[in-house]
Amino acid sequence: VVGKPPTDGRRVRGLATQTSIIREAVQLASTDGLEGLTMARLAERLNIPKSSVHAAFGSKQELQGAVLRETREIMIERVVAPALAAPPGLQRLVALGASWIGYLENEVFEGGCVLSAAASELDGRRGPTRDALVGIMTEWLRLLSDNVQAAVMNGEFAATTEPTQAAFELHSVGLAANWHHQLFGGPAAFKAARAAWSEALARRAAT
Amino acid sequence: VVGKPPTDGRRVRGLATQTSIIREAVQLASTDGLEGLTMARLAERLNIPKSSVHAAFGSKQELQGAVLRETREIMIERVVAPALAAPPGLQRLVALGASWIGYLENEVFEGGCVLSAAASELDGRRGPTRDALVGIMTEWLRLLSDNVQAAVMNGEFAATTEPTQAAFELHSVGLAANWHHQLFGGPAAFKAARAAWSEALARRAAT
Repeated sequence: VVGKPPTDGRRVRGLATQTSIIREAVQLASTDGLEGLTMARLAERLNIPKSSVHAAFGSKQELQGAVLRETREIMIERVVAPALAAPPGLQRLVALGASWIGYLENEVFEGGCVLSAAASELDGRRGPTRDALVGIMTEWLRLLSDNVQAAVMNGEFAATTEPTQAAFELHSVGLAANWHHQLFGGPAAFKAARAAWSEALARRAAT
Repeated sequence: VVGKPPTDGRRVRGLATQTSIIREAVQLASTDGLEGLTMARLAERLNIPKSSVHAAFGSKQELQGAVLRETREIMIERVVAPALAAPPGLQRLVALGASWIGYLENEVFEGGCVLSAAASELDGRRGPTRDALVGIMTEWLRLLSDNVQAAVMNGEFAATTEPTQAAFELHSVGLAANWHHQLFGGPAAFKAARAAWSEALARRAAT
C-alpha cells in the first residue's frame, strides 16, 4: 500500500518487551509486594539485562504505576466484564461475586491479589503509586455501591439499604477470601466467601 | 538480705535492650512488613550499633518470630483480655468486636495490623515464621468460633448457625476495617465495621 509507513521493528520489539516485562512484574509484585519489586529481580526472572528493564521503565515508581494499571486491566477483564452481561442491580451483584471469588480462586496472581496487599504496603507512603491504588479501589467500591443503589431502585433491596455500608461488607468478603486462602490454602476460603456474599445480598432483600 | 544473688547488671540491661528492640521492631514491621524488617534499619531507628541487634536476635527469622510473639501478646492484652470480663457467647462476641475495632482505631501499630499484612507477605513462603502466623490466626479464629458455639448453646444464636462460617464473617469485618482505614484514612472504616459486626451478630439471633 502506497504511503504505508515502514514497519519500525525496534518499536514493535520494544512494545513486546514492555508487555512481557509488565506481566512478569505483576506476578513478582503479587509475591514480593510493590515495594519488594525491584528492577534487578525482575531482570533476573526474565533473564534479560537490568538495562532492558530500565529502558522500558525509567524508575521504580513508573514500574509500580504500570503494575497497578495492568492489575486494574486484568480485574476489569476477569471480574467486571463478565458481570456486565447481567443487568444493573441485584443480578449484577450476584455476577460480580461469582466472577470475583472465581478470579481469586483461579490464582491469576501467584501470590494473591496485588491490590489487596498493596493497601498495607503503601500505608503512610504518600505519592503517585498510593494515589493510583486509592483511585482503583475507589472505582471498585463505587461499582459495588452503584449496583446496590440500582438494586434499591429496582425494588430488589429494602429502601433503607445503605449503599456505602453494603459495598464495605461485600468488599470485606473478597478481602477475607484472599487473606484466608493465602494463609491456610485449600478451597475453604472460597466456599465461606460464596456463602457470605449470598447472605450479604439476601439479608438486604426488599420484603 | 543474706543469700540474695548479686544483681547481674549485664543480664538486666540485656533484657531491657531486647524488649525495647522488639517494641521498635513491631512498629517497623507494621510499616515495612516482616520481610522489609532488617536488622540494619532497626539499628538505625534505635540509634544503636547493628551488632547489638545481632546480639539480641541471632537471625532475621528469630527477629520475625519475636515480632509475631510480641504482636500476639499485644493483641491478647488489648483485644482478648478486656473481652474476658463478658461471659462466653453473644456478650463476649460483642465485647471482642468493640475491643478489636477500638484497637485498630487507636493505631497501636503505625502501619496497620502486622498480622493482617503478614498473610500476604508470607504467602508461598514456607518456614517457621509462616507457621507461627498460621498458629496465631488459628487461635484467633477459634476464639471467635468457640464463642459462636457458646452463643448457640446459650440459646442466643439460632441452632443452625455454623461457627466456622460465622468466625470467617466476623474476622472479615476487622480485616476490612484495617484495609479500608490504611487506604482511605479517617473514621469511616471503623463506623462501617461496627455496623457490620453488630449486623453479623444480630442476623444469627435465635428467633
